[in-house]
Amino acid sequence: MGLTPRRPPGVRPSKALLLLPFLLTLSLVGSQGESNAMDNVSTERMAEESHRQDSANLLIFIMLLTLTILTIWLFKHRRFRFLHETGLAMIYGVLVGVILRFGVHVPQSMADVTLSCAVNASPPTLLVNVSGRFYEYTLKGEVSRSKGHQVQDDEMLRKVTFDPEVFFNILLPPIIFHAGYSLKRRHFFRNIGSILAYAFVGTVISCFVIGLIMYGIVSFMKVVGQLGGDFFFTDCLFFGAIVSATDPVTVLAIFNELKVDVDLYALLFGESVLNDAVAIVLSSSIGSYQPTGDNSHSFEALALLKSFGIFLGVFSGSFALGVATGVMTALISFNLYSLVLPHVTKFTKLRDFPLLETALFFLMSWSTFLLAEACGFTGVVAVLFCGITQAHYTFNNLSPDSQDRTKQLFELLNFLAENFIFSYMGLTLFSFQSHVFNPMFIIGAFVAVFIGRAANIYPLSFLLNLGRKNKIGSNVQHVMMFAGLRGAMTFALSIRDTATYARQMMFSTTLLIVFFTVWICGGGTTPMLSLMSIPVGVDSDQDNSSSTMLDGSQRRNTKHESAWPFKMWYNFDHNYLKPLLTHSGPPLTATLPACCGPLARCLTSPQAYENEGRLHDDDSDFVLNDASVSSMYADITVSTDATGSRTINRNRCSDGGDEGLDHELGLAENEVAIRGTRLVLPMDDPVELPTTVTLPPPPSPPRSDPRRHRL
Amino acid sequence: MGLTPRRPPGVRPSKALLLLPFLLTLSLVGSQGESNAMDNVSTERMAEESHRQDSANLLIFIMLLTLTILTIWLFKHRRFRFLHETGLAMIYGVLVGVILRFGVHVPQSMADVTLSCAVNASPPTLLVNVSGRFYEYTLKGEVSRSKGHQVQDDEMLRKVTFDPEVFFNILLPPIIFHAGYSLKRRHFFRNIGSILAYAFVGTVISCFVIGLIMYGIVSFMKVVGQLGGDFFFTDCLFFGAIVSATDPVTVLAIFNELKVDVDLYALLFGESVLNDAVAIVLSSSIGSYQPTGDNSHSFEALALLKSFGIFLGVFSGSFALGVATGVMTALISFNLYSLVLPHVTKFTKLRDFPLLETALFFLMSWSTFLLAEACGFTGVVAVLFCGITQAHYTFNNLSPDSQDRTKQLFELLNFLAENFIFSYMGLTLFSFQSHVFNPMFIIGAFVAVFIGRAANIYPLSFLLNLGRKNKIGSNVQHVMMFAGLRGAMTFALSIRDTATYARQMMFSTTLLIVFFTVWICGGGTTPMLSLMSIPVGVDSDQDNSSSTMLDGSQRRNTKHESAWPFKMWYNFDHNYLKPLLTHSGPPLTATLPACCGPLARCLTSPQAYENEGRLHDDDSDFVLNDASVSSMYADITVSTDATGSRTINRNRCSDGGDEGLDHELGLAENEVAIRGTRLVLPMDDPVELPTTVTLPPPPSPPRSDPRRHRL
Repeated sequence: MGLTPRRPPGVRPSKALLLLPFLLTLSLVGSQGESNAMDNVSTERMAEESHRQDSANLLIFIMLLTLTILTIWLFKHRRFRFLHETGLAMIYGVLVGVILRFGVHVPQSMADVTLSCAVNASPPTLLVNVSGRFYEYTLKGEVSRSKGHQVQDDEMLRKVTFDPEVFFNILLPPIIFHAGYSLKRRHFFRNIGSILAYAFVGTVISCFVIGLIMYGIVSFMKVVGQLGGDFFFTDCLFFGAIVSATDPVTVLAIFNELKVDVDLYALLFGESVLNDAVAIVLSSSIGSYQPTGDNSHSFEALALLKSFGIFLGVFSGSFALGVATGVMTALISFNLYSLVLPHVTKFTKLRDFPLLETALFFLMSWSTFLLAEACGFTGVVAVLFCGITQAHYTFNNLSPDSQDRTKQLFELLNFLAENFIFSYMGLTLFSFQSHVFNPMFIIGAFVAVFIGRAANIYPLSFLLNLGRKNKIGSNVQHVMMFAGLRGAMTFALSIRDTATYARQMMFSTTLLIVFFTVWICGGGTTPMLSLMSIPVGVDSDQDNSSSTMLDGSQRRNTKHESAWPFKMWYNFDHNYLKPLLTHSGPPLTATLPACCGPLARCLTSPQAYENEGRLHDDDSDFVLNDASVSSMYADITVSTDATGSRTINRNRCSDGGDEGLDHELGLAENEVAIRGTRLVLPMDDPVELPTTVTLPPPPSPPRSDPRRHRL
Repeated sequence: MGLTPRRPPGVRPSKALLLLPFLLTLSLVGSQGESNAMDNVSTERMAEESHRQDSANLLIFIMLLTLTILTIWLFKHRRFRFLHETGLAMIYGVLVGVILRFGVHVPQSMADVTLSCAVNASPPTLLVNVSGRFYEYTLKGEVSRSKGHQVQDDEMLRKVTFDPEVFFNILLPPIIFHAGYSLKRRHFFRNIGSILAYAFVGTVISCFVIGLIMYGIVSFMKVVGQLGGDFFFTDCLFFGAIVSATDPVTVLAIFNELKVDVDLYALLFGESVLNDAVAIVLSSSIGSYQPTGDNSHSFEALALLKSFGIFLGVFSGSFALGVATGVMTALISFNLYSLVLPHVTKFTKLRDFPLLETALFFLMSWSTFLLAEACGFTGVVAVLFCGITQAHYTFNNLSPDSQDRTKQLFELLNFLAENFIFSYMGLTLFSFQSHVFNPMFIIGAFVAVFIGRAANIYPLSFLLNLGRKNKIGSNVQHVMMFAGLRGAMTFALSIRDTATYARQMMFSTTLLIVFFTVWICGGGTTPMLSLMSIPVGVDSDQDNSSSTMLDGSQRRNTKHESAWPFKMWYNFDHNYLKPLLTHSGPPLTATLPACCGPLARCLTSPQAYENEGRLHDDDSDFVLNDASVSSMYADITVSTDATGSRTINRNRCSDGGDEGLDHELGLAENEVAIRGTRLVLPMDDPVELPTTVTLPPPPSPPRSDPRRHRL
């Protein structure tokens, strides 16, 4: 801080801190007027000192992250795969935690003045009348003063402890948004039925199985006399809910690197993204079950129904809100284009402001979170569905530059938030003040988590395989069972409330579960894959090889697998929503009944007509927003490949079947990979000029360009 | 928030808020055990309510920003230049402020419990003993309760008020870092002497001139009886300091768009960036002058000396820290390359991780800020110099993808922070509770600001012109005079402390000055430029036309203008620092004396040797980190242009004179513009293939490629 006065040279911060109580005492003794002036100075100095401390603490974390990044860099280069970056961040966190716990002994400052007046409530804000001047204080939380022997070491450790709400309001949203935004849509939609089953039904099963097992264990512990406090059935269920949220991060990074089969990837990723949302709402509705019953948290049908209602209400509310904001962003970005279009002759003008587009995109996504929180829904869940919607609609309206920018921005935010959470997790193992490690509970929890996961995967897979043509093989099931890591969401949910004995024990146990799954399961994924003989190195863009892995599959399984609701939805989306919200798809004039003609004409982007004439079928993401670039692309393609393929394409689409869907979803993500990373100038006659202009990211031989294959 | 229980349906938030005091009262009446449980519930509910309120308030700002962006979009498209986006943000802020002030009447909740116990100090944290449970409270600030009539409306307005430290710790750093990172280095270094003179000497002159004039006015006001409180000489000086910080944002956006002469641009931008740093340290040292004198803030030589010492200490400390972190980042990014280099055969491998690079860069830059704050220096100043250093050294070590990413990231952060500050500024005009508008003071301040700016520009320009070969024309001086807008820094400094009457009056006046300069001076820049017949539409890359504007200049003025200290620095930088910290420059083996041979060999990047053999002179930024791309570039250039030019280049450089500097600095920024935006494949024989591959950002004809001109 530049403004506040410097401390006198020679007095070191810790000494200055020690002096504070004396200064305070002095000011109490002094006369009224002088004491005010002294107060001001000492308050200022204290505020400065506290700010300096905060900076130093934050610096510890930044340094931790920097260290993690540097090590990751080395690891990536050496191709160490047994430890993921999040595991690494945790290790560094643990190390720093150990140092802070046992190495640094900051003598406790007596700066905390304990007021013992007759206040019987703890309001969020407090006005303290200090000799005629009013100071405002905000509630930070309850502090346990029961453990007298720990009070000396408290200071430093308490200082590096963040408000748990930071995780929910700052760190989780970018992670979850990024998960939604980068969902591989093609394979996700292909497996949507199974993913929803695992995420919803499976998580609820897992939650209740774990809850019941834990209730048995807790009851046994109570009999044996191992339990040091209350532990109700709702606590068990709550534990089941928070521990059922699998983490999309760790395994999937490994899967991505190893290029594991896309369907397995889609199942795991989709499940873990969605079950985060389910778990958060589930735990909140279980929490709301608690205060209903007067006489100890016993079972009560009405309260359960109410909880279920809350679950449905909050989930659907958050879902609707997220989708609504996503659609609104799409409309804004779309409408601005179409609003401006008639007046602009040079179409490129609009693409001069990727900064504005990116900022708008970022702000709208953030406002989803805030809006949901302000309405009493769950911001994180809203943000997830907002991300999916943005990827599906808004992304297509952005200029290529903004598409890159938004992807890179959220990638960075996600990376930082994730590593921060994991290194904080490691730190917490030693810095958290009221750990309750109970061996029986911990062992029981590990067993329960294992059984809960099994009860999710195996029965559901069996049932799903009855309906699926493209069966989920038993090896895939084993991997899914093994790869159910617990991560950021589980941690954030468990640290949110650590007031009671039950919650403290839960938190400590959860921490161990996260450590175990990230280090052991995460590290063991590569051996597990080879043990289960799951093919590795599959190109995610090649349809053929991907599905062969699953027992006896056929090439285009979307048609066979997806049920009629999904097909209906797809047709609706393709014919009405996409044209309405993006520049792609057939013009509304073609799909809407004739009576809506003027409205349809007004709502359709001029580009859609162009699209209709040119590339009828590659609508979703292929058409760039820049006419010149897209026409250039088109020219190249035409000059290279057989033009006949295009006519075939158009024919294929005009039958309006599932092939179009398969094709479109495929293109959608290939396009993203291509855009901005490489440009291929195909030439038939080899000239001396360099024919391939390779831009930064990892090059691949031009022949593998998937769009070429397709057209 | 998902976890906390939902409020009962039917009770709207405002009603729930009203119920709180009753709940509190109830809990006070109830028995001890029950009251605890009730307390918990009500505390939870209150916390939830407050969180919901916070979300809603933040949402207001996000919506404001969204609105601003949408309007800017429209404006940019319609090419309205009379109002900059920051001015727009302010207008929207004012509108929302008016609505909040006069439209919304939230009845004051009585949730604030006023403690009136015998506390004679206000410690930063407070532990409140609420019937046996301890709650922690943190100090938020002093609240003035003097104005009883305003208390009803307080709530809503107080809720949208941010902690002033948010500006210093969250919003200003990205703005200032971005200013440093995007400093146009070539023209900046060419005019470094004049810029330093304006920024340091000029700001100090302006500060004292304004301070003296204000002291006169305040003394007069005291005589007339217009003054409602204390106003010391130090307050006047403080006012002078905060009002002397000109804002780099508004005018320069206009200048950039209009392509105003580069030297004028460099002078204004360099001055306004550096004088922010000067003003912040100056105001802090004036603040530290205050408490020394016991008997009312009169003049005291010793205290002045001490203040001056603090100024020097804080400034040089922050400077050193910023540069040190910048250099360290450069070393890390460089050393990782060279550390990894010997083992890697495929050089491209390293560029696979732009995410890691970007994250590292971001974290290191942030840690500069935190480190400076933790050390008691000024974080914002440290961040500025860190930004300049990063741009000079680290930027060259990053992969092209990371270069884009970092630029885009900080551009976005800067954009958001800036617009947030300006819209908050507008809001403050009506939402701030203790405005003191004194017409005499305001008029006096406007006059003083005007005279202060004149006393900065005209005498200094006269003196500088004595030394400059390339004179600063009187028309340029007038524009510099006119374009001294006040912006984010002035606002942040003035809102930081609004406890006393003097500070409140200063704050209100500053707000008006910012509004006036941004709207009137900002909007009048375009007419002013044409009035002063300053040429517009100058291509910043063309040397020739740019310098002709300034009275009687010659083509290469760096040689003549820059004084010997700068030349020495340039040579040192070019021969030792650049090779040590980046992959460019001559190898250290060539520049260091023979005795240091082994050390030099160890410290030089293998790429530097390559460079030496190939492009000796275009070191600084031209050599990309990827051998393949750079060789491709080279090939193209060679195949297109006359190869003779290269030999000439090498000759020019080998005489080690200033021409190299001019040339290098020029290349440095052209390269940035080229990289990632367009790739030109020059061909001598026109074939049917498209010869220019245009990537997203605004295209320009390939013939204007400045590097081509040069080589």
